[in-house]
Amino acid sequence: MTKYVYLFTEGDAGMRNLLGGKAANLAEMTRLGLPVPQGFTVSTEACTRYYADGETIAPEIQEQIIQALHATEKISGKEFGNPKNPLLLSIRSGARVSMPGMMDTVLNLGLTDETVAGLAKLTDNPRFAYDSYRRFIAMFGDVVMGVERRAFEDVLEKQKRDQNVELDNELDAEHMRAVTDGYKEVYKKATGSDFPQDPRTQLMAAIKAVFRSWENERAQYYRRMNGIPSAWGTAVTVQIMVYGNMGEDSGTGVAFTRNPADGTNELYGEYLINAQGEDVVAGVRTPQPIATLRDVLPEVYQQFAEICEILEQHYKDMQDMEFTIERGKLYMLQTRNGKRTAAAALKIAVDMVEEGMLSREEALLKLDPAQLDTLLHPTFEAKALKAATPIAKGLPASPGAATGRIYFSAGAASAAVRERGEKVVLVRGETSPEDLEGMALAEGVLTGKGGMTSHAAVVARGMGKCCVAGASELTIDEDKKQMIDPAGKMYGEGDWLSLDGSTGQVYDAQLPTSDAELTDDFAKIMEWSDEYRRMGVRTNADSPGDAARALELGAEGIGLCRTEHMFFEEDRIFAFRKMIVAETREARVKALDEIIGLQRNDFVGIFRAMEDRPVVVRLLDPPLHEFLPRTDKEIDDLAAALGMTNVKLHGIVERLHELNPMMGHRGCRLAISYPEIYEMQTRAIIEAAVIVEKEGHKVHPEIMVPLVCDYRELEILRELIVKTADEIISAADAKFTYEVGTMIEVPRAAILSNEIAPFADFYSFGTNDMTQMTYGLSRDDAGKILDDYYNARIMEADPTAHLDVNGVGALLQLAVDKAKDVKPEIGLGICGEHGGDPASIDFCEEIGLDYVSCSPYRVPIARLAAAQAALRRK
Amino acid sequence: MTKYVYLFTEGDAGMRNLLGGKAANLAEMTRLGLPVPQGFTVSTEACTRYYADGETIAPEIQEQIIQALHATEKISGKEFGNPKNPLLLSIRSGARVSMPGMMDTVLNLGLTDETVAGLAKLTDNPRFAYDSYRRFIAMFGDVVMGVERRAFEDVLEKQKRDQNVELDNELDAEHMRAVTDGYKEVYKKATGSDFPQDPRTQLMAAIKAVFRSWENERAQYYRRMNGIPSAWGTAVTVQIMVYGNMGEDSGTGVAFTRNPADGTNELYGEYLINAQGEDVVAGVRTPQPIATLRDVLPEVYQQFAEICEILEQHYKDMQDMEFTIERGKLYMLQTRNGKRTAAAALKIAVDMVEEGMLSREEALLKLDPAQLDTLLHPTFEAKALKAATPIAKGLPASPGAATGRIYFSAGAASAAVRERGEKVVLVRGETSPEDLEGMALAEGVLTGKGGMTSHAAVVARGMGKCCVAGASELTIDEDKKQMIDPAGKMYGEGDWLSLDGSTGQVYDAQLPTSDAELTDDFAKIMEWSDEYRRMGVRTNADSPGDAARALELGAEGIGLCRTEHMFFEEDRIFAFRKMIVAETREARVKALDEIIGLQRNDFVGIFRAMEDRPVVVRLLDPPLHEFLPRTDKEIDDLAAALGMTNVKLHGIVERLHELNPMMGHRGCRLAISYPEIYEMQTRAIIEAAVIVEKEGHKVHPEIMVPLVCDYRELEILRELIVKTADEIISAADAKFTYEVGTMIEVPRAAILSNEIAPFADFYSFGTNDMTQMTYGLSRDDAGKILDDYYNARIMEADPTAHLDVNGVGALLQLAVDKAKDVKPEIGLGICGEHGGDPASIDFCEEIGLDYVSCSPYRVPIARLAAAQAALRRK
Repeated sequence: MTKYVYLFTEGDAGMRNLLGGKAANLAEMTRLGLPVPQGFTVSTEACTRYYADGETIAPEIQEQIIQALHATEKISGKEFGNPKNPLLLSIRSGARVSMPGMMDTVLNLGLTDETVAGLAKLTDNPRFAYDSYRRFIAMFGDVVMGVERRAFEDVLEKQKRDQNVELDNELDAEHMRAVTDGYKEVYKKATGSDFPQDPRTQLMAAIKAVFRSWENERAQYYRRMNGIPSAWGTAVTVQIMVYGNMGEDSGTGVAFTRNPADGTNELYGEYLINAQGEDVVAGVRTPQPIATLRDVLPEVYQQFAEICEILEQHYKDMQDMEFTIERGKLYMLQTRNGKRTAAAALKIAVDMVEEGMLSREEALLKLDPAQLDTLLHPTFEAKALKAATPIAKGLPASPGAATGRIYFSAGAASAAVRERGEKVVLVRGETSPEDLEGMALAEGVLTGKGGMTSHAAVVARGMGKCCVAGASELTIDEDKKQMIDPAGKMYGEGDWLSLDGSTGQVYDAQLPTSDAELTDDFAKIMEWSDEYRRMGVRTNADSPGDAARALELGAEGIGLCRTEHMFFEEDRIFAFRKMIVAETREARVKALDEIIGLQRNDFVGIFRAMEDRPVVVRLLDPPLHEFLPRTDKEIDDLAAALGMTNVKLHGIVERLHELNPMMGHRGCRLAISYPEIYEMQTRAIIEAAVIVEKEGHKVHPEIMVPLVCDYRELEILRELIVKTADEIISAADAKFTYEVGTMIEVPRAAILSNEIAPFADFYSFGTNDMTQMTYGLSRDDAGKILDDYYNARIMEADPTAHLDVNGVGALLQLAVDKAKDVKPEIGLGICGEHGGDPASIDFCEEIGLDYVSCSPYRVPIARLAAAQAALRRK
Repeated sequence: MTKYVYLFTEGDAGMRNLLGGKAANLAEMTRLGLPVPQGFTVSTEACTRYYADGETIAPEIQEQIIQALHATEKISGKEFGNPKNPLLLSIRSGARVSMPGMMDTVLNLGLTDETVAGLAKLTDNPRFAYDSYRRFIAMFGDVVMGVERRAFEDVLEKQKRDQNVELDNELDAEHMRAVTDGYKEVYKKATGSDFPQDPRTQLMAAIKAVFRSWENERAQYYRRMNGIPSAWGTAVTVQIMVYGNMGEDSGTGVAFTRNPADGTNELYGEYLINAQGEDVVAGVRTPQPIATLRDVLPEVYQQFAEICEILEQHYKDMQDMEFTIERGKLYMLQTRNGKRTAAAALKIAVDMVEEGMLSREEALLKLDPAQLDTLLHPTFEAKALKAATPIAKGLPASPGAATGRIYFSAGAASAAVRERGEKVVLVRGETSPEDLEGMALAEGVLTGKGGMTSHAAVVARGMGKCCVAGASELTIDEDKKQMIDPAGKMYGEGDWLSLDGSTGQVYDAQLPTSDAELTDDFAKIMEWSDEYRRMGVRTNADSPGDAARALELGAEGIGLCRTEHMFFEEDRIFAFRKMIVAETREARVKALDEIIGLQRNDFVGIFRAMEDRPVVVRLLDPPLHEFLPRTDKEIDDLAAALGMTNVKLHGIVERLHELNPMMGHRGCRLAISYPEIYEMQTRAIIEAAVIVEKEGHKVHPEIMVPLVCDYRELEILRELIVKTADEIISAADAKFTYEVGTMIEVPRAAILSNEIAPFADFYSFGTNDMTQMTYGLSRDDAGKILDDYYNARIMEADPTAHLDVNGVGALLQLAVDKAKDVKPEIGLGICGEHGGDPASIDFCEEIGLDYVSCSPYRVPIARLAAAQAALRRK
């Protein structure tokens, strides 16, 4: 029979997939002899089984749970449901990877009208017992039965008003008993049943609720954001309750072995005396810095510090821990590798190498390349910042600078971004997991309450999103959609606000930003990455400015220079439009003659910026009609400027219209119809190269033909390009060499790669188009479809962001294999969006590409991801 | 050294690829001891070499030509360029397959000012000698140097006017000498040089001209139409001239061993006494039926009839021959398998089997399945025909009925069809190869001159296009764009005309047509086909009427019933639109409830029509917006009818708009978003099946989910379909079974077929979409692109008509292999347009599909093609 339930003493850290990360680490801490409240774990396989069995827990699994429960009773010396010595349990979720706040937890399980009395007697603390009971009823009601939390809170608030007190802890035992009764009434009213008085019923229901929570909306969204397959499922950990709220020698806290904001090697965290864990995380009471615990409970602090040392050494990584002190005894409730800012991650990695804890390889592999993004985000321009006066200060919860319009709900923020393309700052009292999507879309997040480990702070750091938390000087009213600053100024939705996530300052203005300054740690990590990576890293850049920025960030060449982007600029589009509407070859050539000078200058700028590095220039790709005016008035204006009748220009625009432009007259198809376009572009590229070579650089243009689906296209266009180029080179007596290659972005080109390779010096995989055509899914129209597909759990991630390895990847593999069969020396790169995505970069290493190319700010990510990909295969 | 030149005595019929079809058959006839004017052939490889060498004939090939020339001189006892006994040659093209009239010919080569005098003396016939010379000058001028033919004709016309005669043969020797001088002047004026007096120069120039003609526009177009690769090249045949114009004991003719119009086993053809071959083909003089030759030259006729017998027995096929009689001696100039009408092809095949000449397998393999199309085309409705009075009668050159608007040039006809979607009848004096495209697009062709073997007749029969030729009662003026009938009535462009290609009658009206009546020969061929084919043949039919027609034509089931077509009917679209614009599930379900009855009735009709045969029903596929009104006014009207504001409906229509609808929210994606649509359709299908089963039929619905790109889609929708269907079947206590399958039409589905197959009882390959996505080429937008691609010789054929075996075919093969790996019993079919294309059907056999499905009229084609495909693999 399959084993679905494991005692902590039966597990270890290696069993993460089966037990979930949290439980595996509890088992590991148990193995290390650290003080852990014991318990057991219902495995992720049981979760899968739960869904396979139509959302029921199979009898055999229930049986195993009961057996583990008995073992836990024995360890604890308590008995589940025994009023004289009741065992109380916490029920928590735990997936393979941490999904903070995404799923549900139930505490104090096992309390009933009978056992609560026993607990009161046993602890000699009826107030504590009823406080625990009412918390349990509320959690169980909320998590298991879906009762609105608000209804319970109203009972508590009313009791406080009735007793004329402000804080929960001013209520005494009798008040709490009354609150408990009120909670039970709320429960019965909402669910139609009495609160269950059988602890085993409570237990099974709670376990089911955790399984169910794996599929709640925010968990699905989180998985999608983080590429977590829904098939993994969650485990459920059932653990003996310990209490931080049993008096002044009790407490609870969270801590990191190093500072997660900047990486400093110091114990970092917060605790609350006489409180339960949720009080810290929820950010309702403001906790104390962990260092002060040394004075309050010196022995406990000493023990904790030693445990931190042991754990960090053991895991070889900065740990994020939860602990509870129950009547002076320390219990470890959790340890895991701590989330950290990008700057902290780099510093910790570099420090741990210098401390001898990690090798360089290990250190590189521990980093999350995507996180580097945050380091590269702009900060406010120094001058503007100096001139600005902050209106308030909060906690510097997640670094970066953000400026945007205020919205007070995640929904409104999302709508503003999605529907109106606004830049948004999300302003909330506190955030909750429901706000996840709004946070992801906002430039930055501002909260009025909560600490550095509050939901907003943790999530924002994970996202690399600027966040100022706990700005309590600000009065935030989400319902009225207004915020009032200490000076009494009021802000409404749509007003501008700027946040500095590194200082916690809040400004009532739209502050200009400037580029990030990169630290020595960053430089060191990049240096190590370059040492270990096999693949080159190039950039997608269309202008000398972009090229220069990418060079600073370590790009080794340009992997994609889109020549059409050069024409969208106001002063050029006019010349370009003349070419498009030309009706004869002669008229087109004449219009192209006007354009060639502009193109040549563009390339001169780019070649100069890149100095001796290779530059891949893609010849004209998009459908011509993309460049045309759209509205009637715009057409009329253009017609007038061109001296053409409106009717005629309307006709031309009409004829250029396509039903499916993504699969229409674009890419090299344009050049088969109008060879003079690519001829002009080749002239511009090669003439520019001649100029820059004469200035003393070793130019190396790589001319790329897009959208090839048949070798004949490339054969014909290669001949045109080579003829054009060689004439110029020979006339100018230039020495540089150039290459002619193609984008592989059409499924047929991948399938027939062996036919195409003989005519290509290099391939660059255009995975954006390849993904669209392989799926038959237009990126422009995918929005609603993808949303529905995430909901239906057909897709876990957007295939245009993360390469679909199974489908699109198979075509890429085929293209590589077939090309190498006929031309082993062919150059291979990728220039789709996936070139900057770490998981996709790993696949590029797998299939042996020579380089990846991505947008300038993703170059460092790609350097690190490429190094990791190489190291994983060592 | 490669051998590029072959004497007739060195070849045989098996060397078709190297020598071209015509020369291979001349060699074969030589081998059989038949009277053939001897000569040699410059091979197709020499043509390829010619293009590879930059359109020059390499010295080694020139050398081989000269050697073969010497050998030919020896055989003939004449000498090239010797005025006393000059050898004269004909130079003809010849590709692997016959391309009638597509390439160029030069006759009488070797004549010069010197040799013409010798010829005159030798034949004692100066008139003949100068007539030959002037013909040579004109042909050489036209074919080799591009001089306008018209200019030569003007000289001849002027001479006739000057001499006051009407016919060429009324001119005497002196007149012809004067015409010759005039031709030389025309030549010099047009080319700037004297007419070449060196026979070898003439020869090499003529060979080059033939090579060049392989790439002329009409040859390219013909190859594209017939799927002939341009890489094949043409051979050049150089042959001793024989003359049919040397008096009353000379003549020339063309004949078939059987009647090419109806297949009757009789010698069939025409000849002219005292004429050259071009006189017959051009249709200028009206030739005599071959039977009359028996009386005119009985011995020659007897010899010819015997040769016909020998050739037909030898080739086991009806032969199409050219012959010349020179002073009473018969020469065979050509034999080849004769083109014939579809009815003739069937009759000949059946007769030859009955005569014991062919086995059934051989007979089937000799047929061209595509030709059956013509048998299935409508004829005029008998009643309408009886009521109509013909305005004129021509030759019944190619059977069928055509009705359309008159156009007098191929260009105008093409434009009318392409740009305005008109039905067109092309009316010409005579047609020429330049008219090919216009003929292909027209409903029918009417010519004023020419016989049953004139260009128009031969080409139209090949195309299976209705043609009335030589309607000399009509005065056709192409320049004035008018036609006058014997009664004096005048017709202009755009007027309606009807042609009966089976009777030669011409009507001045738009006559209604009715279905074809199929012959016993047809039935027998179909019966034999069914005996030998392995694959099933189904039809694509959306209505009971289509289904019934397909059944008559032999369909064994429905392979594709498109449910959306049912909604385009006027009275239904309204209900459907309500569903589309519904904004909630409830509103959508309500609208669907109105639709379900209509759908159920549709399926009842189709199931009844198909009786016990399987029916594949595809669930809703196209983007919803396809059903919406387009113009502002239409939207306003719909809004009013729906009681919705215009603004709101405009908004809905706007939101449904997609940039690339082919890759948008369509197919099963609609059902992932709105499962209620497929649920309704499943209900309608299954409820209809229940009704028809109760009527006593064995229904077997196969429900097909379109546009699957991920197995999860099918898993989810299969569950929905099965649940819905099983409930209905169980409630009705029905006994029938059903299947759930998917269209494989997205590249990703082919690649991941092993993941999808477990959820599919069957696959049907949707090769239309698969082709679009594999090429990244939208069929809606491909027009201009394909034209340019044909011109650039990137594509030889439209991949949406003829399956791209290399690219798209590779994906199909992959899908089949991967599906069979996991589910060997999976059903496999094809329902794209390719299911009715013989070459594509052959590929379907190759990859082991169970059936093909095509439009009703293509069912017979598919039956025959499937039989051939199976026989080829025996």
